[in-house]
Amino acid sequence: MATHDGSPRYHHGNLRPTLLSMARALLEEGGPAALSMREIGRRAGVSAPAAYHYFNSLDAIAAALAEQGFAELSEGIDAALAGPRRHLLAGGIAYVAFARANPGLYRLMFGEGFQAYSKGNEAIRGLRIGVYRQMKDDLEKRLTPGDVPNAALFLWSLTHGLALLMIDGQVEPGADPDAKLEDILKLAGMGLPAAR
Amino acid sequence: MATHDGSPRYHHGNLRPTLLSMARALLEEGGPAALSMREIGRRAGVSAPAAYHYFNSLDAIAAALAEQGFAELSEGIDAALAGPRRHLLAGGIAYVAFARANPGLYRLMFGEGFQAYSKGNEAIRGLRIGVYRQMKDDLEKRLTPGDVPNAALFLWSLTHGLALLMIDGQVEPGADPDAKLEDILKLAGMGLPAAR
Repeated sequence: MATHDGSPRYHHGNLRPTLLSMARALLEEGGPAALSMREIGRRAGVSAPAAYHYFNSLDAIAAALAEQGFAELSEGIDAALAGPRRHLLAGGIAYVAFARANPGLYRLMFGEGFQAYSKGNEAIRGLRIGVYRQMKDDLEKRLTPGDVPNAALFLWSLTHGLALLMIDGQVEPGADPDAKLEDILKLAGMGLPAAR
Repeated sequence: MATHDGSPRYHHGNLRPTLLSMARALLEEGGPAALSMREIGRRAGVSAPAAYHYFNSLDAIAAALAEQGFAELSEGIDAALAGPRRHLLAGGIAYVAFARANPGLYRLMFGEGFQAYSKGNEAIRGLRIGVYRQMKDDLEKRLTPGDVPNAALFLWSLTHGLALLMIDGQVEPGADPDAKLEDILKLAGMGLPAAR
């Protein structure tokens, strides 16, 4: 945390990005449970109390990491949607690609503890709504308004489940994970045929 | 663990089911990270070393809990499939209902640490294949054999994702969670309409 006049109280230069970057590495090494202020400080070369000057709790670090994550996820989906592929499919592929590239961060953003540290965080709330909006915009072109929320939850469940099964080692991604991913996400548009 | 002649070395009666039941309660209270041999023993009224006579590691307890879980999940799906509802939909509803009723156990069975404690466990492997088989049997009635694995992963991703979003508090289940669940699982059969 900065002092009231905006200058850091300790003269380490601006430690904030360094602390975040160390926290993010720790998160990818050992998951959300591995985050500890002492270890984050140690890796940044400062004491835990010095680290507390920038983030007043582990929850504040988790929230800052989640902010980074939602911003990057949103950018990834934007970039995919700007490409030549069909919109929702490209967005779904980008979504799962983000989770596979950042498994620890993904679990932090969409896992069990999320409500605890993100509660009342307007920046995270805004970013989450932004990601949801990217999906919803496309659904609104093809569905009546009343059908959009369930369709959105259907797509989110599918991509979330697939992402976790892959990063948690529950399914073998196979020789060409991207092709497999695409084949599965395509089924969301086609549906399964009825039993004969 | 029992001694070689099959009798428990300590005379607490058969502690095994008691220890498992205490472990399961602990799992539901605090998730897989809350499992500790000392606390399981304490709740069963024995020392950690006494508990180690029945389970030689926490992984062994986790594996025994996962076995229980897969057996119960399989029974739940069987019961649903024996009912009047369409097969896959009823199975999907039973799957998510199991996760919602046993969130800690569900995370243990399908989460990140699963490979570590279940490796080489033939009982778990058999039960998992059994649950997979329940879904696959129905898919084989409506798809060519080559399309079954992707369809199965599609359905598993959807139900897994929806179950976790609900138990992790990422989505509001709303006033009638079962109806919402059913509406969303139905989309797997229909698919989403193409963009206009």
